[in-house]
Amino acid sequence: MYLGAVGTALPGEPVDNARLGKLLGVSDEWIDIFVGTETRHFGWDLGTGEVLRTLTDLCAEAGAQAMAAAALEPADIEFLVLATATPDTLLPTTATQTADLLGLDQLPVHQVQAGCSGAVQALDLARALLGTGYRTGLVIGGDVTHRHLDLSRDLTELSSEELVNYLIFGDGAGAAVLSGDPLGEAVEVKAVLNRFVGLGRAPGQLVDWYGVSDRHSPRRMVMEDYKAIESGVPELAAEALWDLLQLTGWAAEEVGYLLPPQLSGAMTERIVRRLALPRAREISCVRATGNTANALPFLQLDQLLGELGEGERALAVSIESSKWIKTGFALEKAALR
Amino acid sequence: MYLGAVGTALPGEPVDNARLGKLLGVSDEWIDIFVGTETRHFGWDLGTGEVLRTLTDLCAEAGAQAMAAAALEPADIEFLVLATATPDTLLPTTATQTADLLGLDQLPVHQVQAGCSGAVQALDLARALLGTGYRTGLVIGGDVTHRHLDLSRDLTELSSEELVNYLIFGDGAGAAVLSGDPLGEAVEVKAVLNRFVGLGRAPGQLVDWYGVSDRHSPRRMVMEDYKAIESGVPELAAEALWDLLQLTGWAAEEVGYLLPPQLSGAMTERIVRRLALPRAREISCVRATGNTANALPFLQLDQLLGELGEGERALAVSIESSKWIKTGFALEKAALR
Repeated sequence: MYLGAVGTALPGEPVDNARLGKLLGVSDEWIDIFVGTETRHFGWDLGTGEVLRTLTDLCAEAGAQAMAAAALEPADIEFLVLATATPDTLLPTTATQTADLLGLDQLPVHQVQAGCSGAVQALDLARALLGTGYRTGLVIGGDVTHRHLDLSRDLTELSSEELVNYLIFGDGAGAAVLSGDPLGEAVEVKAVLNRFVGLGRAPGQLVDWYGVSDRHSPRRMVMEDYKAIESGVPELAAEALWDLLQLTGWAAEEVGYLLPPQLSGAMTERIVRRLALPRAREISCVRATGNTANALPFLQLDQLLGELGEGERALAVSIESSKWIKTGFALEKAALR
Repeated sequence: MYLGAVGTALPGEPVDNARLGKLLGVSDEWIDIFVGTETRHFGWDLGTGEVLRTLTDLCAEAGAQAMAAAALEPADIEFLVLATATPDTLLPTTATQTADLLGLDQLPVHQVQAGCSGAVQALDLARALLGTGYRTGLVIGGDVTHRHLDLSRDLTELSSEELVNYLIFGDGAGAAVLSGDPLGEAVEVKAVLNRFVGLGRAPGQLVDWYGVSDRHSPRRMVMEDYKAIESGVPELAAEALWDLLQLTGWAAEEVGYLLPPQLSGAMTERIVRRLALPRAREISCVRATGNTANALPFLQLDQLLGELGEGERALAVSIESSKWIKTGFALEKAALR
């Protein structure tokens, strides 16, 4: 499977810690130190809560950009797989709404419900679909925060557990064109790792939703077990890296780029220290974009494609902490012949 | 791809039209005539609204039943694809929670967000995954109604548009074991049709969700455009049947069983009249179960497997009306050698 091109979409201007901190009653220094995320983008107005860009808008923008970069028309795309944790509606799916905006028709359109592992799960499905004879497909991932961050509350009163959700997440989408034969960049996906490892393990994160019958319920909508995440994610990331080296047969010294998990600036720093690939350059975007979940690996890929030289190799790792999925992939850019 | 075994789960006792009609202030005769659904199952208490069986519970029950029927252990299952429109939470996914209850580990676990087409989309992905070298996988579909039907309202005051949602849907789950080589029943899946046809076409159905920030919004959570559904679904079902005959090369007279779309008893009757396969016996369950969306094709398959004789052929059609996906599949039971 080859990665033909990547597209990304981040709504509006970056929101910095000074602006966000003022709303939340915390200092920007405190956010810098404890979260390590400097800016993020929101598709909604921080003053009024009004939604300006939906997930569908962002996914379609990223998808169109990837298609344009690979010089493809809608009729060239033979399947769409879209991953998100925060669909605009349950039905129609955001995948079908995005297909409509992109002008796609008469093709399989799948939507994968996932968190941080969604982009890799979508790549895994794309690989399987390309194996059945399709030549070219589009994979998209994205997430938005407007339903889970509540501006109508007094945000200076948030508990520190809730506060962190307002600080680490951001809105965004990313997309990639994938093909059986090389297109454009000729970056080959040499391996995809996608393994559920949550058997008997308590969830590290919860993201819930309300219907009409339970919207007055006092239950929390977003919860993290940060202790479980802080120990589980670095450990699983190290395992995933090892698994990818096994799958590819590459030595650690042969990896030129590392795309690590992007939970927050501070967590990513801790994880990278542990992963310790001797010659790999880190490709991270979380300090600038926040945690955009299903969009993140595409934002990293976009950065990577600008740097990856002929014959160079990259490994990407993403860990789903809600119920623990270990994912990653390996890329190699074909050398000049 | 072969269908090894099927499992199903319907919560509690069937709820009849007399009981439901009393709650809603309509007669059971009215329901019989206009909806044509006689009973349905709910995983929640009709008196108190208390949730007794979650979607995860139902999916795990159906999955375990399918695995037992195929005499498979958790370690034999190499991937799980679960389809639903109504996940218990956004994260963890119902697919990962179900994997945990089934004892599955170290495998790809995908959750597809879909309505009536979800079971077939999951079959389509299973077929692609089996093509990459996996031998055996589990596919599950299910839906529950408790978040979208609101017992705290005066239900005798519902508009007729809202009333119908309380009458046509039911809770349930179904599962199928799929394999590259024949297992048990040796029923072969000869073709899978999965085609988005929603380009430029307004959605026929909406199912929405609330977060913390918009739960006081007055917007409706479930809406159908019944005019669009009544004209669109029979038309697309006829197209899908034709597509499946093309894909398999079968003549209409060679089809012994038809598994039609199961929107409601009345709608299914109308669709079947239009499909008119000369020798096909109809396999429907909607009058007894209501519309259980992602579970339905599995409930039909369960009934079919008890009847399908050696050398016999079946066609199934399912139409997603939210943003229009045309799906179906073709089955053939191997003849004795």
